[in-house]
Amino acid sequence: MNVLLVYAHPEPTSLNGSLRDFAVQRLEAAGHTVQVSDLYAMNWKAILDADDSPERDTSRPFHTSLDSKIAFAQGTQAADIAREQEKLRWADTLILQFPLWWFSMPAILKGWVERVYAYGFAYGVGEHSDARWGDRYGEGTLQGKRAMLMVTAGGWESHYSPRGINGPIDDLLFPIHHGTLYYPGFDVLPPFVVYRTSRMDEARFAQTCEALGARLDELWSTRPIAFRQQNAGDYRFPDLTLKDEIAPDREGFAAHLR
Amino acid sequence: MNVLLVYAHPEPTSLNGSLRDFAVQRLEAAGHTVQVSDLYAMNWKAILDADDSPERDTSRPFHTSLDSKIAFAQGTQAADIAREQEKLRWADTLILQFPLWWFSMPAILKGWVERVYAYGFAYGVGEHSDARWGDRYGEGTLQGKRAMLMVTAGGWESHYSPRGINGPIDDLLFPIHHGTLYYPGFDVLPPFVVYRTSRMDEARFAQTCEALGARLDELWSTRPIAFRQQNAGDYRFPDLTLKDEIAPDREGFAAHLR
Repeated sequence: MNVLLVYAHPEPTSLNGSLRDFAVQRLEAAGHTVQVSDLYAMNWKAILDADDSPERDTSRPFHTSLDSKIAFAQGTQAADIAREQEKLRWADTLILQFPLWWFSMPAILKGWVERVYAYGFAYGVGEHSDARWGDRYGEGTLQGKRAMLMVTAGGWESHYSPRGINGPIDDLLFPIHHGTLYYPGFDVLPPFVVYRTSRMDEARFAQTCEALGARLDELWSTRPIAFRQQNAGDYRFPDLTLKDEIAPDREGFAAHLR
Repeated sequence: MNVLLVYAHPEPTSLNGSLRDFAVQRLEAAGHTVQVSDLYAMNWKAILDADDSPERDTSRPFHTSLDSKIAFAQGTQAADIAREQEKLRWADTLILQFPLWWFSMPAILKGWVERVYAYGFAYGVGEHSDARWGDRYGEGTLQGKRAMLMVTAGGWESHYSPRGINGPIDDLLFPIHHGTLYYPGFDVLPPFVVYRTSRMDEARFAQTCEALGARLDELWSTRPIAFRQQNAGDYRFPDLTLKDEIAPDREGFAAHLR
């Protein structure tokens, strides 16, 4: 299998760097092929702007989605964007690895998503009408591939529990899991999260690697998070709310789980 | 009053640009002083890295929080970071204005948060022990100031409703409201959100400005979101979960509302 690991940490000798090295070795030892997009090492351009559509019509103002659409359709996107899209097409599984900064992904990784997720590639795919809202949320360009987050957090696991002060980790990650990975078609696996990173010693690191290794060994058989497909009958069109008879007593993120 | 508007859109002639201009005029006409941090126009450095601590000890690896702490304490942070912190100290109210990209803020604004929110400024403030978890979540450097999001979204309002497919807007914004604004002490006002931005005509734009104007006129009297202060008795230490008797039947983001 082909695994793309997109890695967002500035310091190679960090805990994240060690976990990345472990993950690559483990996957390769199992016979898989791994590509790493090390965003800091690549000096990845984090900011979506007009330079991403270098041949755009400059007689009108820059428009984020329209210029993305034209550049993608015409094959005139910035070369770094096209390269990452090619890696995504190649991959069977995508791993996004990052430290949780302010309860989300680092800016450099957010900018990878914004730029690589072109109109026509990750959104604006398929028929868009009041009857069918495109191929998204379970369908799309990346359908059939798997994705998983590898996340480190400074806080304690209890702080991210259902009644923990930071909010439950599954809810904090929902905009990424559902809105960023499931949206263009990925099957999303439960995340691998390491808490309390400042209290990492050799014994805990060994335990962490063991747990991570087990997850990587099961990457192909782990059951994905059971998000509801947009176009499979659970939602009303065009308001895209759950039909009254679907999980009638639920609302919020959890209502979108089968 | 002093208002800092941090603005994150690449195109000045966009809807966001027009709403920003309207907001600045409205606030100034009411006698307030406004500073705008136009992140794209400033060519804001989005990526947190070792260059943010230019005088750091290079004999050891870069450490994101430790080097931030030292640079902040010694006054050796990168100049652009120190300038934005000064604007935050000056401001009575902070407005973050951005298009919702992949259900969160644009990378350039995320990078503003990551870099300006130094250790000792926005986190790592106050006594940290197993009995008191620092001045955060309602206390901290920015306590007594107000903050509000001004957000544009392409989707329909129903898509962001309690049973809408994207998830409820209040939950999608929780990591920003609670985890990024309430965390260092801001009182967080309900957001101003504009939906379905591709269907904006003159009449709707006029309506939108009217609604925004009303919100800006009431910036000083609007009741903030009633998040629970960390150190006011609702949480158990050090696991920082809600005490059993506090909202005993609730969990998730909503449990952190009084």
